[in-house]
Amino acid sequence: MREIAWYNGTMTALSEARISPEDRAFYFGDGIYDVATVRKGVCFALEDHLDRFFRNAQRLKLNLAQTKEQVRKIIEELLSKLDRDIEEAVLYFQASRGTAPRSHAFPEGVTANLYFTLKPTCFKKMGTEVSALFEEDIRFLMCDIKTLNLLPNVLAQQKAKEAGCYEVVYHRGERVTEGCHSSIGMLKNGVFCTPPADELILPSITRKHYLMLCEKIGIPTRIAPFTREELLSADEIIIMSTTAVMCRCVEIDGKPVGGKDPETLKKIAAAYREMILEATEM
Amino acid sequence: MREIAWYNGTMTALSEARISPEDRAFYFGDGIYDVATVRKGVCFALEDHLDRFFRNAQRLKLNLAQTKEQVRKIIEELLSKLDRDIEEAVLYFQASRGTAPRSHAFPEGVTANLYFTLKPTCFKKMGTEVSALFEEDIRFLMCDIKTLNLLPNVLAQQKAKEAGCYEVVYHRGERVTEGCHSSIGMLKNGVFCTPPADELILPSITRKHYLMLCEKIGIPTRIAPFTREELLSADEIIIMSTTAVMCRCVEIDGKPVGGKDPETLKKIAAAYREMILEATEM
Repeated sequence: MREIAWYNGTMTALSEARISPEDRAFYFGDGIYDVATVRKGVCFALEDHLDRFFRNAQRLKLNLAQTKEQVRKIIEELLSKLDRDIEEAVLYFQASRGTAPRSHAFPEGVTANLYFTLKPTCFKKMGTEVSALFEEDIRFLMCDIKTLNLLPNVLAQQKAKEAGCYEVVYHRGERVTEGCHSSIGMLKNGVFCTPPADELILPSITRKHYLMLCEKIGIPTRIAPFTREELLSADEIIIMSTTAVMCRCVEIDGKPVGGKDPETLKKIAAAYREMILEATEM
Repeated sequence: MREIAWYNGTMTALSEARISPEDRAFYFGDGIYDVATVRKGVCFALEDHLDRFFRNAQRLKLNLAQTKEQVRKIIEELLSKLDRDIEEAVLYFQASRGTAPRSHAFPEGVTANLYFTLKPTCFKKMGTEVSALFEEDIRFLMCDIKTLNLLPNVLAQQKAKEAGCYEVVYHRGERVTEGCHSSIGMLKNGVFCTPPADELILPSITRKHYLMLCEKIGIPTRIAPFTREELLSADEIIIMSTTAVMCRCVEIDGKPVGGKDPETLKKIAAAYREMILEATEM
């Protein structure tokens, strides 16, 4: 199959999947999700994504019926059904609190609904140059959980799209937080800088890999809040996500930014590429 | 039928309704909803609810395929199918941006998905005494739109439930905003006080009715922000919503509150009852 869905044990073509509207994701966005990449049938950094998924499920007190091992098996089954000619694919997984009559408080005696999709995609090449917009971060104070409450992100991304941009750079007052579907980092005097993973930003797995790789290849790192002003004067601005590991932000609000330390960027890109190859080549 | 669903033109028993998981409500909570009450087959204040629904759809730039008149006709059709013996029912209606492959920005060329449910219920008697909890309001800064991003509300309501309470009283710092599924008002020295309908609270239709009725029966009103301290020293604390028009809050965080002006409360309740009867008795 090319586009596969799995919902509570039933596997179908995505276009044929059907669910009850009483899934609480539909009424409340009462659930979590995660996204992982697949190369030549192998899922990259799956353990990291599963760990985050189960951690988030616990944060929201979802009653998952499956263990991590069982979820891994479902993913293996999905991967085995994917057409062999698909080089790159994206795995999406979601859990909602369950199916129940609409009422805010947790329904009793229900288990979480588990949902997966697996679809071909084409990942953005590392180093792709992109532009961005600053956008005041009006999201709730639970941004460290990867929830299904993504309406502000939707509106921000649409605004970026209409301005011909790839992403927004969210800020709370002067402090930069993250993008609406990415994390933000920067290079300054050879140091990789990223905001702390507090309740204002999602603990990005790609960001974690950057920190790990920088340590490995001898690039100093700094985890501390930074301002819009500091970002604008960075040597390089990096927009990173699972499906677009390294975008090089060269314009914010129409003004040129970054572009002053391609060498360090290339070093990180090379290390990242090697890590992905090691993890996904058989 | 007793529990009816309608989704994009298909009417079924609610338990049999099925939708595509690619409805953007499911992935992003990318949509809006409204709730109206039905008494003896007649919908109360439907125009107010339709106005708000269409206003919210416009705020989110949803591409609704139906006019207000067409939505009214769908609701009439639903009401005509409801079992005759049902005295009180609740009408829920929802619009999401549409069905499309998961991607944050608005999909092109799709119209909104429209969804209704109509179910029997039993409304809370006016004057019912309830208790509440204070809860810091961590929601996004779009609380004036009735969106499907309700996860903080779900978590707050569960917290209230676990504490044996009916509602939370949200506050941002010291300023009281609203409940997680209700509006908050208070009586102080014979004056009905409610916070301004800014971006921090939903423009509640019940609150609007209170303001209208108070003016009609000669109870002064004040629309201004108030603090937790002021709420705690109110003569009466009123928790109001479409399906529970007047709950009398007599306890917050375990301490007795309000209960000092039952006469004014009774006057408002009588006027509200009369208005509902006038509007829904044939």
